[in-house]
Amino acid sequence: MGKKSLNNRYYVPGFSFSGISSGIKKSGAKDLALIVSEQTANIAGVFTTNRIKAAPVKLDIRRIKSGRGQAIIINSGNANACTGETGYKNADEMTKITSQELGLPKNLVYISSTGIIGRPLQMPKIIRAIPKAVKELSPASLENAASAIMTTDTFTKIALRKINIGNKTGTIAGIAKGAAMICPNMATMLSFIMTDVSVKPADLDSSLRRAISNSFNVLAVDNDMSTNDTVLIMANGKLGNREISEKSSHYKKFVQGLNEVTYDLARMIAADGEGSTKVIEIVVQSAGSKTDAEKIAKSIATSMLVKTAIYGEDPNWGRIISAIGYSKADVKEERIDIYINDIKVVGRGKGLNKSIAAQKSLSGKEITITVKLGVGKGSAKAITCDLTENYIKLNAHYTT
Amino acid sequence: MGKKSLNNRYYVPGFSFSGISSGIKKSGAKDLALIVSEQTANIAGVFTTNRIKAAPVKLDIRRIKSGRGQAIIINSGNANACTGETGYKNADEMTKITSQELGLPKNLVYISSTGIIGRPLQMPKIIRAIPKAVKELSPASLENAASAIMTTDTFTKIALRKINIGNKTGTIAGIAKGAAMICPNMATMLSFIMTDVSVKPADLDSSLRRAISNSFNVLAVDNDMSTNDTVLIMANGKLGNREISEKSSHYKKFVQGLNEVTYDLARMIAADGEGSTKVIEIVVQSAGSKTDAEKIAKSIATSMLVKTAIYGEDPNWGRIISAIGYSKADVKEERIDIYINDIKVVGRGKGLNKSIAAQKSLSGKEITITVKLGVGKGSAKAITCDLTENYIKLNAHYTT
Repeated sequence: MGKKSLNNRYYVPGFSFSGISSGIKKSGAKDLALIVSEQTANIAGVFTTNRIKAAPVKLDIRRIKSGRGQAIIINSGNANACTGETGYKNADEMTKITSQELGLPKNLVYISSTGIIGRPLQMPKIIRAIPKAVKELSPASLENAASAIMTTDTFTKIALRKINIGNKTGTIAGIAKGAAMICPNMATMLSFIMTDVSVKPADLDSSLRRAISNSFNVLAVDNDMSTNDTVLIMANGKLGNREISEKSSHYKKFVQGLNEVTYDLARMIAADGEGSTKVIEIVVQSAGSKTDAEKIAKSIATSMLVKTAIYGEDPNWGRIISAIGYSKADVKEERIDIYINDIKVVGRGKGLNKSIAAQKSLSGKEITITVKLGVGKGSAKAITCDLTENYIKLNAHYTT
Repeated sequence: MGKKSLNNRYYVPGFSFSGISSGIKKSGAKDLALIVSEQTANIAGVFTTNRIKAAPVKLDIRRIKSGRGQAIIINSGNANACTGETGYKNADEMTKITSQELGLPKNLVYISSTGIIGRPLQMPKIIRAIPKAVKELSPASLENAASAIMTTDTFTKIALRKINIGNKTGTIAGIAKGAAMICPNMATMLSFIMTDVSVKPADLDSSLRRAISNSFNVLAVDNDMSTNDTVLIMANGKLGNREISEKSSHYKKFVQGLNEVTYDLARMIAADGEGSTKVIEIVVQSAGSKTDAEKIAKSIATSMLVKTAIYGEDPNWGRIISAIGYSKADVKEERIDIYINDIKVVGRGKGLNKSIAAQKSLSGKEITITVKLGVGKGSAKAITCDLTENYIKLNAHYTT
C-alpha cells in the first residue's frame, strides 16, 4: 500500500514511463529511460548554448520546430557528443527504432544523452534494449525513468505540483539529473517535464522559459555550459481544459506551478552537487538594477573561495565582499550589508564582529547569504552548493 | 661565499631592501617588507579593478599620478581592506612614519597590504617595527623582502634579468606573492619590480602594461579580482643610460626583459597555487581573433573539471572541448585539434584514441594543452595549475 501511494504521487494522466538497464553502464545500473504520452502532445524545449552541441541536442533542435511530440528516449552513461556524423546518425536511429516500437512517426520522438563525451554509442546494446523499454512502460514508473537518467547523481530528482484550472485539477511533474558539478562547469543537466494541462505550443515555450529563468538558470550553473543540457516539457492536454495561452487567466498559475516544479528540481540538483554537504542560496537585494543583482549573485555563487569557506563553516565575509567587488556591478562599498543566514556580519561595508554567531549558524545544511546593496531596486537569487575534497576526488578520476 | 654569490644575483644598483617580523603574523614569520631607492625613481603601477579596493590601493592610486617614488612599505597578514576611513588613515600613517624614518617626503612612499580582509591593522606593532625595517635595509636583502610579503605562499618568488643598453648592463628584478588561489578567485597578487635603467615615467607605465599583458594577465587569474592586487615598478636611473622612451631603440629590449621577469614570476605563482601539483600552460592557435583565442584560453584555464582532470592525470579532452564550446568564441567543431603535451588527442573535433599515451605524459609536473581552432590567426596563452584536495583543505579553514 505504501508503495502504491508513493507511485500515485508521481502519476501524470496520459503519460507512461520506463527505466531499464541496457548495458551501457558497466555497473548494470539503469541507463535507458522512456517517456511516452498516450496522445500527441505540445512540446517545448530549452537547450545548451554551448557552441559544441551533442548529436541528440542538434536533432531535438531541428525536430522541435514542429511544436509537437509524443515520446522521449534518454540514455545515460554516454553523451553522444563530439562523435561526428556517426553520432548524429546513431541519435536518429535511436528515435527511429523507438518510433517503430511505439507505432509513431519518427518526428514525434525526441532524444537526450548524458555521460562521457567522445565515445561512440554502443548501438547494438541500445537497439536490443529499446523494445524492452517499450514493454515496461507504465503510468506508475516515473521513478524508474528518473533513476535511468542519473550519472553521478546520488538520488533521483522528482517534483510534482497540482494546479487548479477552473474546476479541474491538472498535474505538472518533472524529473531531472545534474550532479556532476553545479558550477562553474556543470556537467550535463537534463530535465523532463510532463503535464496533462492543455497549453498552446508558443505559450508552452514562453512558460518554460519563464519558469527556468527563476530556477535552473539561478543555479550557479552556466546552464549553457554542457554540450548536452536539455529541458523538455510535454503538455498532452489530457486534462481537457480550454487550451491555455499567455492571454488566458490560467497562464500565470501554470507558470507558477511549473516554476515550483523546476525550482524544486534545481534545489535537488544543488543538494546533490558532487561532494557537496550544504545547499547555499544567495539573495541579492537593492542593487542598482536586476542585471547588477544577477551579476553579484552569480559572482558569489561561483566563487570557489566562498564555497570552500561555507564548507569549512567559516563566516569569511571578506571573500563575499571581494566577489561583490569583482562582479563588475556598480556598488558603493560603504552601503553594503551582508547577512549569513539571519546574522548581519557586515554593516555599511564594515565587519560587525559577528563571527562566532555566524559560524554557529553555518553548521546547518541549508545556508542563505543575503546581500543588500542599498543603491536601487534590483534583486536576484542564485542557488549553489559548497565545494569539498570529495568534488576533487570524484572529478580527478572520472573517465579512466 | 655561496651565500654572497647568491645575494649578488639579486642585487639591483641603487636599491636596498629589508624584510622583518613585526608581529602581525601570530607565527612570528616575516610580515613587513621595505624597498628603498637611494635616489628618487620614476614609478608606475597597475592596480586591481575590483570595485572594492583596499585602503593602500586607494592611497597608491592617488599618489602615483606624480610618476615619482622612492620607497615601498608592504605588510602581509592583514589586507587593510573593508576597514573604512580608519583603514585609509592607517595606510597613510604607515607611509608617513616610513618617510620620516627615511628622511623623505611622504608622497614618495607607497604601500601595499595583503592578508585577511576586514580587520584593523595592528598599528602599534607596525609603528614599532618600521624603524627596525629601515635599520635593516641592505642592497643584499631582496630575499628577505620577498619572504616578508608572503601569505600562504610556500616559496619566495624572485626573478632577475640583465639587459644591455648600449654599452651598459642594466638590471630588472622583481618579487611577487600569489599563492592563495590562482583562479578563478585569486587572493591578493602583489609584485614589486626594481630597475636601475632610466625610463621616462609615461613609457615606464606603458612598458609595465605590455609586460603584464603577457604574464600576470595570462595567469588564469582575473587579475582584477582581489581587493589588493598591485604591481609597482621603480626605475631609479642609476645605470646612467639616456632615458628610454617608447621611441628609443632600447624600449623593445626593456619591455622584453621586463616581460621575462614578470612571466617567470607568473609561472612561480602558478606553481605555488594553493595545493597545486602541476603547472598548466594553455596555448591557443588559429582562432578567429586574438579576443576569441583569449576567451578560449581563459575558459579552459578556469575550468574546474579540466583542472581536476589534470590533477588526476586523466586526458579527459571532453572537458577541454566543452570549455572551448562555452567560451562564447566562434569555433567550428569539425576543425578543432587538441594536443595534451605533444600528443594529438583530438583531430577535426573527434577523439583519436590516444588516451594511454596522453595519460603517461600527464605524469610530469609541467603540462601543456594546445588547441588549434583552424579558423583564423588569433593566438593566446594562459597559465594555471591543477586543482587538488589540498586547495579545499587550505581554503576551508583560513581565517577561523
